[in-house]
Amino acid sequence: MGAPTLNEIQITAVRVIDLRFPTSREHIGSDAVNKDPDYSAAYCILETNSGFEGHGLTFTLGRGTDLVVQALEYLTRYVVNRTLSSITDDLRAFVRQLTDDTQFRWLGPEKGVIHLATGALINAVWDLYARVEGRPLWQLLAEMEPARLLQAVDFRYIDDAISEPEALDLLMARRVGYADRLALLQKQGYPAYTTSVGWFGYSEEKIRRLCKEALAEGWTYFKLKVGGDPVDDLRRGHIVREEIGWTHKLMVDANQKWGVREAIERTRQLAELDPWWMEEPTSPDDILGHARIRREAKPVRIATGEHVQNRIIFKQLLQAEAIDVLQLDSCRVAGVNENLAILLLAAKFDIPVCPHAGGVGLCEYVQHLSAFDFLSVSTSMENRVIEFVDHLHEHFLDPVVIRNGRYQLPTRPGYSIEIWKESLTRFAYPKGEAWSQHA
Amino acid sequence: MGAPTLNEIQITAVRVIDLRFPTSREHIGSDAVNKDPDYSAAYCILETNSGFEGHGLTFTLGRGTDLVVQALEYLTRYVVNRTLSSITDDLRAFVRQLTDDTQFRWLGPEKGVIHLATGALINAVWDLYARVEGRPLWQLLAEMEPARLLQAVDFRYIDDAISEPEALDLLMARRVGYADRLALLQKQGYPAYTTSVGWFGYSEEKIRRLCKEALAEGWTYFKLKVGGDPVDDLRRGHIVREEIGWTHKLMVDANQKWGVREAIERTRQLAELDPWWMEEPTSPDDILGHARIRREAKPVRIATGEHVQNRIIFKQLLQAEAIDVLQLDSCRVAGVNENLAILLLAAKFDIPVCPHAGGVGLCEYVQHLSAFDFLSVSTSMENRVIEFVDHLHEHFLDPVVIRNGRYQLPTRPGYSIEIWKESLTRFAYPKGEAWSQHA
Repeated sequence: MGAPTLNEIQITAVRVIDLRFPTSREHIGSDAVNKDPDYSAAYCILETNSGFEGHGLTFTLGRGTDLVVQALEYLTRYVVNRTLSSITDDLRAFVRQLTDDTQFRWLGPEKGVIHLATGALINAVWDLYARVEGRPLWQLLAEMEPARLLQAVDFRYIDDAISEPEALDLLMARRVGYADRLALLQKQGYPAYTTSVGWFGYSEEKIRRLCKEALAEGWTYFKLKVGGDPVDDLRRGHIVREEIGWTHKLMVDANQKWGVREAIERTRQLAELDPWWMEEPTSPDDILGHARIRREAKPVRIATGEHVQNRIIFKQLLQAEAIDVLQLDSCRVAGVNENLAILLLAAKFDIPVCPHAGGVGLCEYVQHLSAFDFLSVSTSMENRVIEFVDHLHEHFLDPVVIRNGRYQLPTRPGYSIEIWKESLTRFAYPKGEAWSQHA
Repeated sequence: MGAPTLNEIQITAVRVIDLRFPTSREHIGSDAVNKDPDYSAAYCILETNSGFEGHGLTFTLGRGTDLVVQALEYLTRYVVNRTLSSITDDLRAFVRQLTDDTQFRWLGPEKGVIHLATGALINAVWDLYARVEGRPLWQLLAEMEPARLLQAVDFRYIDDAISEPEALDLLMARRVGYADRLALLQKQGYPAYTTSVGWFGYSEEKIRRLCKEALAEGWTYFKLKVGGDPVDDLRRGHIVREEIGWTHKLMVDANQKWGVREAIERTRQLAELDPWWMEEPTSPDDILGHARIRREAKPVRIATGEHVQNRIIFKQLLQAEAIDVLQLDSCRVAGVNENLAILLLAAKFDIPVCPHAGGVGLCEYVQHLSAFDFLSVSTSMENRVIEFVDHLHEHFLDPVVIRNGRYQLPTRPGYSIEIWKESLTRFAYPKGEAWSQHA
């Protein structure tokens, strides 16, 4: 008896869990805007008539996770009682079912709570698909025929920037050298940067100690949170520079703190730290604002993306020459499908993708997307690094492996996002022990 | 004993209601994208220690209203147990409390479900404020000192387009002629257009009959839904033209059906109907797309806004010269406060505002905003019309009054949004009679 095929596997039920880690008790993840995050997730498990499950989550910051959970519960109607093949045979139609629900759509479209929920569900489907195919997600994507892969992409609202035939040409042309790239990735891994040294709530002593530890572990790219008092931002920046020197890369991140004019002024001031990029200088919705900041604060490179709501905003950030670095998010947009569109757009405009990670499970997710991007889309690791934050990985069955500041290629089937059952129970909100015993 | 003052009034509780009207049973409101709307609202009532209440709602399409209701319930923590003056003394700080909640913000920011909920709550506060002051909302706004009015506006993320001093200059300069404008408005009302003739699901006979009826009632502006089969769109358009002639204005509305390239092609085809504007040709997120459509489908005028998520997108639509008509929505953005910002932006860029209405309560809301815009901001009614749809007004205590195709200026204190208690009970979802008896 062989493994079941896609059309033999039926999704019988979806379990949705409101999962919250009380990280605000330790000031983990604090920045200029997000002061007290409880790293959380709207988590779902696709149960099937086989031994396989599909897991997916969307990262949130605590309060409001219940809204995403409720939206996710609503969307489960589009997968329950379906065979896996009925979804994977037309992944574009599947995405449209989720994003075009005639009444639900009014609440977006394709943004905010309902889109965050869509991302969790779509990622769970890909996790299941990859497990059934016995491959890690990056490999499933990389080994898929380009024409079939593109059937997962919704080109609606982006075909003025990249059409399906154009995307196909791009993917076909970039097949050359695949085996060499795979060998390189397996040997060296994918470069990463650490955000763990420079959160907002940390003392000078803590920043210095964390920098020293990170250097000892082999890190060469470091990110610092800014957007506080200008003098203090520079002071903290110089502390990091004293520790890491001027050869290693330092990025600064304002988490949307400023308006356009203030962002230009502050970015110019921070230029004395020689930042490798300035991240989220202003609202993620402000395409023209980013373009102006980029023009007027040259040569500082501009980055954004973790809060960019969908492929349509990313398209315009590229069209307007507003960014030097595209920071995709694995679950704010509609999961793997929409991120395929975003990787293709970035390749078309020749802008490097450096994914947003950290939070809960984002590192586990994005390593697959960057590996696939290197193997099949951009085919480059130049100027590309994946964010890494060393929190909460112990809750994952297949956590990321970092060596010498690089992500090691995952090998287990799936999307690496499954959380241990014990953690799902303990951190379930509000009844899990982590919350009920603290109340 | 006089009326209580703002600091004597305390908000003691907020009741939140999931209100849904089963309009899909009659194909009311169907268009190219929204096929089966059940016109709905997340509705709230601010209860106080006085005889005053504040009412607010956000319009939705049925499923998912529960998400907005739940978000609204969460946000009530920012008003309960506060005096009204503690809010109205710093309305900008109040808005920021709602939009900057450190954990909730992740789900937006300032977009989608949480922003829709914010709009309902802020509008309820203004309704309460206007009732206590004994004036209709338009009058409260128009009689407020400009400097004080601007304290309600969050200039964050828009001050590169309009600064607070610049907005103050604009308002001060436009005080001239106020009394004349008020007299004109009281005498003639504000021009309107009807969308009731051209919904998607209507037969040719029904369209002809509705056009004849509308002409008899004095309507001179008509809107037709397009975005279906190209030949059929033109056929329906010519039916309307046969009925209304070529002197009256006809607008066409595609409800985001097309990508940019298709929108250009289809808008050019529809030009033979001599449309007064082309509405929502593509995604509301696509600023650069609208700009390109406008350039390449000239001379057809381009309109959008009912799905524009916040002032930041509107700012860019204006900066990019992407629209000829700005269609603000009274509750998709953060209520009166954010709409003040949007009216100021439109005035700065000299683009007419023609509000989105219809749905539930949108006509009741926007008549106040347009009246204020005429009195104090744009000071013009040229090329300006408010949408009107003749549905569900019977549920309101102070429904709009239309005469000869014009909105008559409301006179009762408040924001005209209160719904009869009987309707709130009957259409409460899912337990009200309208639903429980149909199940």
